Amino acid sequence: MMIPNWLHQRAKVSPELSALVGKEGQWTFRELYEASLGIAQQLHSFNIASGDRVALLSHSNEETVLFIHASWLLSVEVVFLNSRLTEDELEWQINDAEVEIVVVDDRVAQTPILDGVECLSYSTIRQAERKEFEVVELWEEDRTLSVMYTSGTTGVPKGVRQTAGNHTSSALASVLNLGLTDRDSWLCMMPLFHISGLSIIIRSVIYGMETRLYEKFDAKEAAAQITAGTVTAMSVVALTLDQIVRVIEEGNSKAHPTFRTMLVGGGPVPLDYLERAAECGLPILQTYGMTETSSQTATLGKVDAVRKLGSAGKPLFFNQIKIKGTDQAREVGEVLIKGPHVTPGYIGSQSNRSPLTGDGWLATGDAGYLDEEGYLFIVDRRADLIISGGENIYPAEIENVLLAHPAVREAGVCAKDDDQWGQVPVAFLISDQVSEQEILAYCAQHLARYKVPKEIRFVDQLPRNASNKLMRFELKKSL
Amino acid sequence: MMIPNWLHQRAKVSPELSALVGKEGQWTFRELYEASLGIAQQLHSFNIASGDRVALLSHSNEETVLFIHASWLLSVEVVFLNSRLTEDELEWQINDAEVEIVVVDDRVAQTPILDGVECLSYSTIRQAERKEFEVVELWEEDRTLSVMYTSGTTGVPKGVRQTAGNHTSSALASVLNLGLTDRDSWLCMMPLFHISGLSIIIRSVIYGMETRLYEKFDAKEAAAQITAGTVTAMSVVALTLDQIVRVIEEGNSKAHPTFRTMLVGGGPVPLDYLERAAECGLPILQTYGMTETSSQTATLGKVDAVRKLGSAGKPLFFNQIKIKGTDQAREVGEVLIKGPHVTPGYIGSQSNRSPLTGDGWLATGDAGYLDEEGYLFIVDRRADLIISGGENIYPAEIENVLLAHPAVREAGVCAKDDDQWGQVPVAFLISDQVSEQEILAYCAQHLARYKVPKEIRFVDQLPRNASNKLMRFELKKSL
Repeated sequence: MMIPNWLHQRAKVSPELSALVGKEGQWTFRELYEASLGIAQQLHSFNIASGDRVALLSHSNEETVLFIHASWLLSVEVVFLNSRLTEDELEWQINDAEVEIVVVDDRVAQTPILDGVECLSYSTIRQAERKEFEVVELWEEDRTLSVMYTSGTTGVPKGVRQTAGNHTSSALASVLNLGLTDRDSWLCMMPLFHISGLSIIIRSVIYGMETRLYEKFDAKEAAAQITAGTVTAMSVVALTLDQIVRVIEEGNSKAHPTFRTMLVGGGPVPLDYLERAAECGLPILQTYGMTETSSQTATLGKVDAVRKLGSAGKPLFFNQIKIKGTDQAREVGEVLIKGPHVTPGYIGSQSNRSPLTGDGWLATGDAGYLDEEGYLFIVDRRADLIISGGENIYPAEIENVLLAHPAVREAGVCAKDDDQWGQVPVAFLISDQVSEQEILAYCAQHLARYKVPKEIRFVDQLPRNASNKLMRFELKKSL
Repeated sequence: MMIPNWLHQRAKVSPELSALVGKEGQWTFRELYEASLGIAQQLHSFNIASGDRVALLSHSNEETVLFIHASWLLSVEVVFLNSRLTEDELEWQINDAEVEIVVVDDRVAQTPILDGVECLSYSTIRQAERKEFEVVELWEEDRTLSVMYTSGTTGVPKGVRQTAGNHTSSALASVLNLGLTDRDSWLCMMPLFHISGLSIIIRSVIYGMETRLYEKFDAKEAAAQITAGTVTAMSVVALTLDQIVRVIEEGNSKAHPTFRTMLVGGGPVPLDYLERAAECGLPILQTYGMTETSSQTATLGKVDAVRKLGSAGKPLFFNQIKIKGTDQAREVGEVLIKGPHVTPGYIGSQSNRSPLTGDGWLATGDAGYLDEEGYLFIVDRRADLIISGGENIYPAEIENVLLAHPAVREAGVCAKDDDQWGQVPVAFLISDQVSEQEILAYCAQHLARYKVPKEIRFVDQLPRNASNKLMRFELKKSL
């Protein structure tokens, strides 16, 4: 089906509803539309037009929301760059994406991080002339609106296309599960360059729902909003959930009864957290989603939170989940996903690789099973994925960097449990004479800080299977 | 996008939620699925299979809901026959639709109404063997699931295709406007062979929401449910709204605070009704929809009910509305509609006629305008449509019958306001010597009772314009 240009249509349908509230101000949908349209016209004066691709490197604040909507009013593809990446990583993605322009907020513009790349800052754009254009009122389902890079088993980042149809069907499947009321407001403390944050902005404009936006996670502020009833939903990971619960506990308080949805992604939530959250009146909905599915594929409802502990729940209404090679309940295999929310593929150097099987299933690389009632349980995240403070880290990517060091002959990386971050990466090396310090300094040059191993172990051999494949789960056992 | 076979998917996603409550019993989605699947397998034993077309002539009760879902589990097209039509009218539609089979409920089977047509009764089907089949799990958007006949300017009934995409997008656009909560339940006292009733059944299975079904409108029962809080939404027309309001007034009662949506179709609601409904705590949402748009295109929210009195509201999120030939606010012209809820066309003898303009707009035939804020006002229903007790009556269809009488030389039909029915049809005739009685008896043979003129006026001439076209609005003035 054709999809209306979100903000353009929303501003027509319900102009006076509250759209966005943050530190810098608040906007109705009409105001958001007018402000974004102005920026869109300024972007257009740099000859950016429908179908072009721009990259965005910025902090997750209200101004960035305006620039995102401006880009979509122009029907431009936005490549969301993770501001925690190193210059090397950013350059790689910018080159791979072949963008027309890199838009950066003014704080980013003042750092030397993108020395080699030509950037346009927010304030440069805002000083430009406005050049009028005709808004594309209806989007084809398969029009790409956003691109996010994610690494996989190979360690090579792939630019995942997220289309108008992906985002729209994801938001619609979610509303059928979570419901919607006049007073809904979603608290966003997730980065907008992650699907967890961006999907909130998109739900907001599709639903006519308010977003309350914070640039960074702030447990005290989250607890205050949740107990005051100014918000009705929030997206977190287990780590940040725990921090919010602590604040609510310390204040001897409770979530306001209108707070309805605490959506927890990034892996299962420990029973202890669930019990404490329940004490605080927080309705927990554990979810399983990824960049390739533009947010949630399955979500465990609050009524099942304890009964189905550890489950990621049922598929949402438009989605299908099956386990590769089996129809048997509780038999573990690769999780396959089908639905209108699944990416059609990648851009750039990986554009010839399809993430889909011949009959249209996304092979996630995650291992899991379905129980007798059809609830999904994830047994092992794909490619030994390490989830650290909500960021996905792929061991292969770190291993590739380590192997590029002259002294390193073999490298293996796995996750180690960590009280603060949930998990952190640890590296095992077979190498010539070299210090841990030198390796870490080398990593810091080439990897975002959260990807730098927290520990280096020098070993004589790495566990490999018969076909000489690295068995990372054996590394993990040896910790 | 591909759409999951509704009930099949809903029973997987939320099997234990309440689906249907009525006089004959109540069903969860799992129970509804199992009961419907059994009937589907019995239908399949008559060699009915995916892609076939069956007609359904029945009363609007729970058993009929099961037969509708059974047909859709089989991925069969259902032609919904209006049980108030005459044998002539039914035969015409059944022939035009070229159905494999006519399914009738047992009460219909006992009447002589379909003497010339071979029918299969519910009980015959329920005594058949079950023949297993593989459920089509995903539907193409453009798969036709229902057909409803509607007459237009020519008076020839056209079988309107309603696809999986039409119904699904309609339900989704509606939920973004009306919201959704865990405890939602929609009271259905509309016939299921009308889009107003059928769309409730469809929303129910897409949302995972309960339907409370009554075979016939019952003001007392409606008022009881609304004041008790057992339902949160209901669909009515102005006539039935008034009757419910009277009962609530007489009981000195109020709608329960959880009752959120009184959706009023079939023309504007008088200010007096709105004021009285407000007194009763009934949130009125006036809507503009038709068979060709699988329910609502525009809906006026409760906050605007008085401020925008007489308006049909704003387009829903996936829809576009414009006035033919003008971009000026308040300029009257034909209402054009675009959106994924608009029918792709007709079946049978009219299948070569497209209801759409070259660039994909549905020409409604209705005259209206948009005000400065984009609110739609309908000035005149298409083809001088007569709406009598919620039924659409097309003057041309009655005129065609009248003109077939040997004594009638010219005929013109228009609406007359009526306290009980809203409107009733009145006929103007130029004829040879013939009695009103004879004409009415003749009409009763060929037209459903509600279409038979309530009054015949014999005249010397009919008002015609320069090109000799009948000006029905002039007839109306002469009443």
